[in-house]
Amino acid sequence: MRYAKGHGTGNDFIVLPDADGRLDLTPALVRRLCDRHTGIGADGVLRAVLVGAAGPDAAGAGATDGAEWFMDYRNADGSVAEMCGNGVRVFARYLIGHGLAAGPDLAVATRAGIRRVRQRARDVFTVEMGPAAAGGSTWAVIGGTRHAGLAVSVGNPHLACLVGRPVAEFDLALPPLVDPAVFPAGVNVEVVRMTGDLAVEMRVHERGSGETLSCGTGAVAAAVAAAVAVGRWPDGEAAGDGAEWAVHVPGGRLAVLPSSTASLLTGPAEIVAEGEISPGWLAGAGAAAQASGVPRASATA
Amino acid sequence: MRYAKGHGTGNDFIVLPDADGRLDLTPALVRRLCDRHTGIGADGVLRAVLVGAAGPDAAGAGATDGAEWFMDYRNADGSVAEMCGNGVRVFARYLIGHGLAAGPDLAVATRAGIRRVRQRARDVFTVEMGPAAAGGSTWAVIGGTRHAGLAVSVGNPHLACLVGRPVAEFDLALPPLVDPAVFPAGVNVEVVRMTGDLAVEMRVHERGSGETLSCGTGAVAAAVAAAVAVGRWPDGEAAGDGAEWAVHVPGGRLAVLPSSTASLLTGPAEIVAEGEISPGWLAGAGAAAQASGVPRASATA
Repeated sequence: MRYAKGHGTGNDFIVLPDADGRLDLTPALVRRLCDRHTGIGADGVLRAVLVGAAGPDAAGAGATDGAEWFMDYRNADGSVAEMCGNGVRVFARYLIGHGLAAGPDLAVATRAGIRRVRQRARDVFTVEMGPAAAGGSTWAVIGGTRHAGLAVSVGNPHLACLVGRPVAEFDLALPPLVDPAVFPAGVNVEVVRMTGDLAVEMRVHERGSGETLSCGTGAVAAAVAAAVAVGRWPDGEAAGDGAEWAVHVPGGRLAVLPSSTASLLTGPAEIVAEGEISPGWLAGAGAAAQASGVPRASATA
Repeated sequence: MRYAKGHGTGNDFIVLPDADGRLDLTPALVRRLCDRHTGIGADGVLRAVLVGAAGPDAAGAGATDGAEWFMDYRNADGSVAEMCGNGVRVFARYLIGHGLAAGPDLAVATRAGIRRVRQRARDVFTVEMGPAAAGGSTWAVIGGTRHAGLAVSVGNPHLACLVGRPVAEFDLALPPLVDPAVFPAGVNVEVVRMTGDLAVEMRVHERGSGETLSCGTGAVAAAVAAAVAVGRWPDGEAAGDGAEWAVHVPGGRLAVLPSSTASLLTGPAEIVAEGEISPGWLAGAGAAAQASGVPRASATA
């Protein structure tokens, strides 16, 4: 089985080319692949399947006009995910780098619908992230201190707290406490600080994952909250029509054009290495060895 | 640049074949390779160099009679290390698997001297770990509670605490406190519980690394402490002549024959994947993209 390992701002992925959709990618196999000590290690898996071979998954995305490839994204815990703003850049880089897509413009089918991607430099891609919506004011308790924040939807729920101190000073080891009436299914929480004109730094606590080096939808949410704060929201109705924000995350730098109709996320995508997964490991021989191959106490060397 | 990723009981390594010793493996490159998000990810790097091409490193190991390959082991932080009981099994498996060594018996040159390895099954290897020495009684404070322990030297310093509770219940998040007069350069601390005749479970806090899934010398230290406790130490002078201990670690199972002259460690070694590191990543193009390729705030999409 061929694979590539890539990342976008430190959010890392195993790309599995599977044009014909023949791979039986079980949750257990995803977990084994993503294990950082006994597998290849990654935040998730991006299986590349031709739309025609992807079956109901790709069809679930709605019209696939123009999209040749379906991005079958899985989280490291084996669960299915709809979209990932960092992952789709790595996905596009892989396809273009292998001549599987022409570029520079590319439509990718995902469970969240078609996502349009544009290659802007060899390793820089812009992704359409869909509409963002600013919700109401709310709060989060982070490291024992209550902060005001803004509910933002980028397809998934976010709570972006504008703060006055460097984001490095916040304690995101534990999940922030939030109002369960506002976020019954949990929420991704960002701490966001303005660092200049159209520039913020942020850190994010992702529900289910803890703090991560980068989060594409979180970067969009941070830009929306910052745009709201300076009266540039919604775009096109205020001063900030089409203004792009620089968003520094722990894993690098992203650029976001927040929009109530089609936000754009720009960032790097790298392929670190490519190769072949060992057939013996795939067959689980290692696990068997660990369970039975090492002599028990009664054996002698 | 070719590479393989492998692990032994969850202690994982990047193997770099470099027969002629041409690779300029700087500490910075080791750190980049071992980064689990932006690189390949591992606990360390095992560079495979022919003894004749390894220069003073291999010579420093003393006589290299019989050893064809030098294991240039580096920690994930870029520092040089002498030996690694889990790493040398992965190293041997790689060499034998690629026909670079005949097996089943193999002498590997390391900075700690020659280590003899024997392949016992396709993915199970026994390694000579050198002499172990039981020192005096001492103590460690683990999770706020003081425990009695035994100082053990396996080339490097260990403090093995025999405990009566399951080792899963101990808090090893913070470094245990130890007597600085006994361990001026720090120490690896094991909690060890007898689970049966010649069987223990253990967890380890490695100095400089924190808790790890497995530690080869720690497993030897745990077996020595257990052997002392049941009157089987030193070997050959008491009942336990040549007795092998089963040592359960969080990453799997090891078997140890502790000895004051030449301890033996047996455990699994797996190759997970093999491939090629992307030239662009090696050239640091990604870092450059992250620093400059993403448009700044003034640019628009």
